[in-house]
Amino acid sequence: MREVAVLGIGQTKIEEHWEKSLRELAGEAILAAMHDAGVTKADGLFIGNMMSGAANHQQHLGAYVADWAGLRFSDALHVEAACGSGSAAFRAAVMAVASGSLDVAIAAGVEKMTDSPGGEITAELATAADYDWEASQGLSFVALNALIMRRYMHEYGWKREHFAPFSINAHANGAHNPFARFQEPITEAAYAKAPLIADPINLLDASPMGDGAAAAVLVPAEMLRKVGSGKIIRVEGSAAATDTIAIHHRRDPLWLSAAERSAKQAYDQAKITPSEVDLFETHDAFTIMAALSLEAAGFAERGQGPRLALEGEIRPDGRIPVATRGGLKARGHPVGATGMYQIIEVVQQLRCEAGPTQVEGARIGMTQNIGGSGSNILTHILRAV
Amino acid sequence: MREVAVLGIGQTKIEEHWEKSLRELAGEAILAAMHDAGVTKADGLFIGNMMSGAANHQQHLGAYVADWAGLRFSDALHVEAACGSGSAAFRAAVMAVASGSLDVAIAAGVEKMTDSPGGEITAELATAADYDWEASQGLSFVALNALIMRRYMHEYGWKREHFAPFSINAHANGAHNPFARFQEPITEAAYAKAPLIADPINLLDASPMGDGAAAAVLVPAEMLRKVGSGKIIRVEGSAAATDTIAIHHRRDPLWLSAAERSAKQAYDQAKITPSEVDLFETHDAFTIMAALSLEAAGFAERGQGPRLALEGEIRPDGRIPVATRGGLKARGHPVGATGMYQIIEVVQQLRCEAGPTQVEGARIGMTQNIGGSGSNILTHILRAV
Repeated sequence: MREVAVLGIGQTKIEEHWEKSLRELAGEAILAAMHDAGVTKADGLFIGNMMSGAANHQQHLGAYVADWAGLRFSDALHVEAACGSGSAAFRAAVMAVASGSLDVAIAAGVEKMTDSPGGEITAELATAADYDWEASQGLSFVALNALIMRRYMHEYGWKREHFAPFSINAHANGAHNPFARFQEPITEAAYAKAPLIADPINLLDASPMGDGAAAAVLVPAEMLRKVGSGKIIRVEGSAAATDTIAIHHRRDPLWLSAAERSAKQAYDQAKITPSEVDLFETHDAFTIMAALSLEAAGFAERGQGPRLALEGEIRPDGRIPVATRGGLKARGHPVGATGMYQIIEVVQQLRCEAGPTQVEGARIGMTQNIGGSGSNILTHILRAV
Repeated sequence: MREVAVLGIGQTKIEEHWEKSLRELAGEAILAAMHDAGVTKADGLFIGNMMSGAANHQQHLGAYVADWAGLRFSDALHVEAACGSGSAAFRAAVMAVASGSLDVAIAAGVEKMTDSPGGEITAELATAADYDWEASQGLSFVALNALIMRRYMHEYGWKREHFAPFSINAHANGAHNPFARFQEPITEAAYAKAPLIADPINLLDASPMGDGAAAAVLVPAEMLRKVGSGKIIRVEGSAAATDTIAIHHRRDPLWLSAAERSAKQAYDQAKITPSEVDLFETHDAFTIMAALSLEAAGFAERGQGPRLALEGEIRPDGRIPVATRGGLKARGHPVGATGMYQIIEVVQQLRCEAGPTQVEGARIGMTQNIGGSGSNILTHILRAV
C-alpha cells in the first residue's frame, strides 16, 4: 500500500449561497485546492454529497463537477454516507492513491441546502435515518438526537447547561475562521436563553444548515519526498465502521460503537494512542454528538464527555482541542461537505496556518465524521512529518 | 497494487418486486454472493444505487444494507455514478482490495424503481443529465437518446430497422436467463410494429425499468492461489472516464469519448487488444448506446456499430457477443444495479455457467457501464486464469 499525502486544500465560505450553483461551489473549492497544491490536472475526483438528487434535482455529481472544474475525461465518482459523505469521499480517494490506481486524486465535498428547488430539507435529512422504522414515523434528525440526549442526561445526571461549553468553544473558535458561517462568540447567557427546537436540544446545541464545499488534493507521499518537499501531511489512518441504521436496534444507544471501532482501527494504522492526538475535529452536529464522540474515541470515560468541555480541555490550549475552526456548530454543516471541512481544518493546524486558534505544536490531527445517528462513522488521522 | 479476484456472485431476478424492500433485495443478492464465495463475513461493502433518496426516501445505503445483510460494524459506502453506479461500486471495491485496505470486499448494486413511495421515476432518471441545461428544459433520458439516435441515422444513413438485431439478440439470450425481466424472444415483425416512445426510439429499443440487486465478493488473487483454488476470475482492467454531462457541450455527440478512454485504459491494464475479448457486456439502455459502445471500444468502425449486429456478430457464436444474458434490454435495467449484473454475467461466462448462451471457450470478458448520456463510462476486464 502506498503512503498518501495531502498536497493542497481549498474551501468556500459556508453561507446561503443564493448566487452560486452546486457546481460553482464545488468547482471553487476544487480549483482552490489545486492552486494550493500547484497542480493543474488530476487523475480522478471523488465527490461527497448527501442529497443533491432531491435538493437540487441533480445526481451524477462525478461527471457534473469534473467537467465544470476542468477535469473532463478524468475518473470521477460520487460517494455518499449521509452526513459522513465528505470523509467517505476522502477515504475513497485515499484508497485510490494507496492502491496505485491514481496518482493525483481530488477528494471534495459539497452540499447546497438553502435554496433547494425541490424537496424539504428536514425531510431530506431524514433519509439518512431508517425510513421504515424512523423517518416514516415522523422522526426527524433533531428528534432522534434529542431522544439520545435526553437519555444521556437521565443516565449520567447531566443538565442542559453542561453542554454549553461545546457550543461556546465552537463559536469562540469560529470567530477567527473567515470561512465559518457564524463568526461571533456566544455567551453562557445566550445559550441558556436559546429556544428549544426539540427538547432538550436548543438552537445553540444544533449546527446550522448552509451551502459550501471543501476539497483536498491527494498524492503518493513518495512523490513529495522525491522532489524534496518540506513538511509532508501524511494520511496515517483511514477507517470506517457501521452500526445499525435505526437507533432502537442498538444494545446501547448512548455508545457510538462505530466511532470506537473506526477510531481503534485508525489508531492501529497510525500506531498511536489517543494521548498522542494533538487535536480532534469532532462531528458536533449536536452537542450530544461531540460528547459521545469524545468518549467513543477514547478521550473521555463513558458518560463523561461534558466534563472535558466543562474543564476547558477542548479549547485550543486544552488537552484535546475540538472544533478548532468552529466545528459543525459555528463553521457550519453543509452535510455532504462537512467531512472535507474537518480534513482541511486539520491540515491547516498541521501546517500551523490556523491563526489565533492554532494548536501549539500540533503534529497529529484526527477527524471523526458521522453519517446518520452514529450508523456510519469515519475516522482519519493525519500527521505532519 | 494487489491483484483482485471475484470469488462469488449473487443476484435477484429483475421484476416488479412489490413484496420486497430495497434492503431485502440488496441483502438477497449479497447473501447469495457470500454463499457462492463460501465466506460468512466481509471487511467492507460498496453499494451502487442511483436514486433511492428520491424514489425510496432512503439514503445512506451503506449502513442501511450492511446491517440488514449481517455486516454490521463493517466499512460500508454508497457509490453513485447514475446508471453507472453498479460498476462504480465494483471499481471502488477493487481499489479497496488492491490497496490492501480491505481483504474481503463486497460490491453490490441495487435499485427499486417500480413502487416508489416518492418521486416520479422519469424525472428522477433525468437527474443524471445536466439539470440546468437539459432536465429543467424538459429533456428526459429517452428524449436525449432519441436526439442522438436521430443524428446518428442522419450522419451514417441507418434506418430504424437496422437497430432491430440488438434488441432481438438481447431477447433471444434473455430467454435463457432465469433472472431476466423478459424471458421471451422477439421477432423482427414485433420490432417493426413496436410503438414509438420518442421518435426514432421505439418500445423495443428501450430497456425496461425494474427492481433488482446483484453482488460480488472480491478478494486478493494471492489469497486464492495460496489455498490452491482452481479457476481464478481476475479483475485485470478497471477504468473510468468522464465527459461533459450535457450532450450539447461535446464536440461530437455521436462519439463516446469516455468509453474510448476507459476502454483504452482497461486494455492497457490487461495488456490486451479488443480482438482478444471473448464477450462484451454493453450498456444497451437503448439500442443506439450499444452501437456507440461497440464503436468507442474498438469493435466496430465509427458509424458502423449496427453492421456488426446485422451480420450476426454480436450473437453468442459471433465475433463479439454482447448482451449474452439478455443485456439491459431483456434482463432489465434497475439502473444502479445494472453494472453489477454485467459483472456477474461475465463471471458466469468465464466460469462456463451461462447455459445455452455460453460463449464457447470464453476466457476474457469485458463490461462497459454508462452513467448519464455517456458522461461517465466505466470499463472492466475480467480474465479466467
